[in-house]
Amino acid sequence: MRVQALGEWGLIRRIRRTIGSGAPGVCVGIGDDTAVLQPTPGAWLLATTDLVIEGVHFRRRSAGPADIGWKAMAVNLSDIAAMGGTPRFALVALACPEETEVEEVDQFYEGLTAAAAPHGVALVGGDTSASPAGWIVNVTLLGEMTGAPRLRSGARPGDVIAVVGTLGRSAAGLAVLEAGLRPDLPGDVLAEVEQAHLRPVARVAEGKWLGARDAVHAMIDLSDGLATDLGHIATESGVAARVALPRLPVAPSAGAVAQALGLDALDLATTGGEDYELLFTMERSAAEAIATGLGSATGAAVTVIGEISTGTPGVQFNDAAGRAVDIGQGYEHFHG
Amino acid sequence: MRVQALGEWGLIRRIRRTIGSGAPGVCVGIGDDTAVLQPTPGAWLLATTDLVIEGVHFRRRSAGPADIGWKAMAVNLSDIAAMGGTPRFALVALACPEETEVEEVDQFYEGLTAAAAPHGVALVGGDTSASPAGWIVNVTLLGEMTGAPRLRSGARPGDVIAVVGTLGRSAAGLAVLEAGLRPDLPGDVLAEVEQAHLRPVARVAEGKWLGARDAVHAMIDLSDGLATDLGHIATESGVAARVALPRLPVAPSAGAVAQALGLDALDLATTGGEDYELLFTMERSAAEAIATGLGSATGAAVTVIGEISTGTPGVQFNDAAGRAVDIGQGYEHFHG
Repeated sequence: MRVQALGEWGLIRRIRRTIGSGAPGVCVGIGDDTAVLQPTPGAWLLATTDLVIEGVHFRRRSAGPADIGWKAMAVNLSDIAAMGGTPRFALVALACPEETEVEEVDQFYEGLTAAAAPHGVALVGGDTSASPAGWIVNVTLLGEMTGAPRLRSGARPGDVIAVVGTLGRSAAGLAVLEAGLRPDLPGDVLAEVEQAHLRPVARVAEGKWLGARDAVHAMIDLSDGLATDLGHIATESGVAARVALPRLPVAPSAGAVAQALGLDALDLATTGGEDYELLFTMERSAAEAIATGLGSATGAAVTVIGEISTGTPGVQFNDAAGRAVDIGQGYEHFHG
Repeated sequence: MRVQALGEWGLIRRIRRTIGSGAPGVCVGIGDDTAVLQPTPGAWLLATTDLVIEGVHFRRRSAGPADIGWKAMAVNLSDIAAMGGTPRFALVALACPEETEVEEVDQFYEGLTAAAAPHGVALVGGDTSASPAGWIVNVTLLGEMTGAPRLRSGARPGDVIAVVGTLGRSAAGLAVLEAGLRPDLPGDVLAEVEQAHLRPVARVAEGKWLGARDAVHAMIDLSDGLATDLGHIATESGVAARVALPRLPVAPSAGAVAQALGLDALDLATTGGEDYELLFTMERSAAEAIATGLGSATGAAVTVIGEISTGTPGVQFNDAAGRAVDIGQGYEHFHG
């Protein structure tokens, strides 16, 4: 059945059924003029929004409706994670062409709730509309935290720079999905990088754990690429950031894809973007305890990749010999 | 200068300048992974979101960037008003073609803040993106209230149905904007209906006042048209709604436009939509005091247009002789 045949209110009723209802703190969910929520008294409220547009952020050729829903939620979860917060409530606006099959809309909300459910996030409101051209999704996510949020502006000279997990898989996955011919690589390698691109997993538990440590000073999620995102920390904190390229935890799967497609693995890792790993700075003396503690608590690996110092705000990448290396820029939506 | 030449971060810095910064309850606004907000302890949080798409919700031929910004904010303010709440924080996502002039983006945010400023709403976050086809705007608005929100489900048999202000101006304005030839009518009439369509004013003060009255049971804003929106109250409350067509406060300007264009003024008033007036139900005995009180407090007029009774949930429109009249349906984004 097509969306057109169901009508807007038929669609909203169907969405309500798909996502279920009732969650702590939700007084009124989908279906009234607004959601009515009860945040935890005394907690900070975190709020973030992301627009995801067909042809700009994804292609239907490679991303199914469930992938679109998953990723639209995951990128917002990642923003809350980067503050050290707990995601709570989501508002989802979807526009799709009138001839869209209703089952595809179901799959979209299933993908979205699959990403949200492990974190107890309730879908409390939204909007639906016809779209003149392609799918358009906006997710707004509200989160909470009781301690101090970890801002981009918190980095201090003397801090070390660290990253959770590995780099380059999402960009490698995008390269595979966009390549005309599938590279001659084991199926599990291709699946890993494609999954990293289509179904990124936000580091929510890791962000909360890191956000509760006094030694962690600044944090951001890697959405636009290491070069750009570390640049935000440097600029907002007024510090210089120096990264040792040989230390970067490039994912082996990303390395294999880079080799097969004639790409530079370090380029994928520094400017590829969309890894949705956490980048943070911390007191040098705490680095070992933080790495061990996060590993015990969540299983995630921490790699120290550089250091913060006084100086002109900016990012410098150094090779094994300590020489500055020129790195391309990460993703900008409007290319200057 | 074009958006493309400024780049994404240049654009965000420019938006920060356009909208200003610093507002009560805002700890971190635009520029980090999320906004950090401090809602009033003990208050309910209200959350609503609306997607506004070129070619679906507006045409650039008739709506300038400032109009688009104003309306995207106003429709969300209206949703908060319909609960009886106080709007507080907004997140705004904008996608526009790369060749858009930066001045147009400025005008968009100026229109948006012009609609938000009288209510002390702070723009605390958002997203910017290139769009493959036309302007796409998503506004998420957070509000608060300490009392009980006025829901669509609150109508009780014996209530009277009332509306704030007048009906039909927005639909008349749309008809004028879409007409090939401008109707032969006084300029102030045309300006009034066009303004009502392009720059609707949300009834925020009226909603707060009504939401604080125990006698007011259900409330909704008129976005999809009286027939559809009253239908939501009837369905959600499980009651029958009966409206006397001769009682409808059709705006004189809408009547004049209807006559000039050969349209039915009652049709504009019942199914036209986008008036963003408030529709509510209240105890019959309180109707006179509520009308007088709201008039004194805000200057707005209240008109009783019908009544709520037990029976099959639905809406019936009656003519002067008390006969049921068939009315078309209001706006549905996916026409069933």
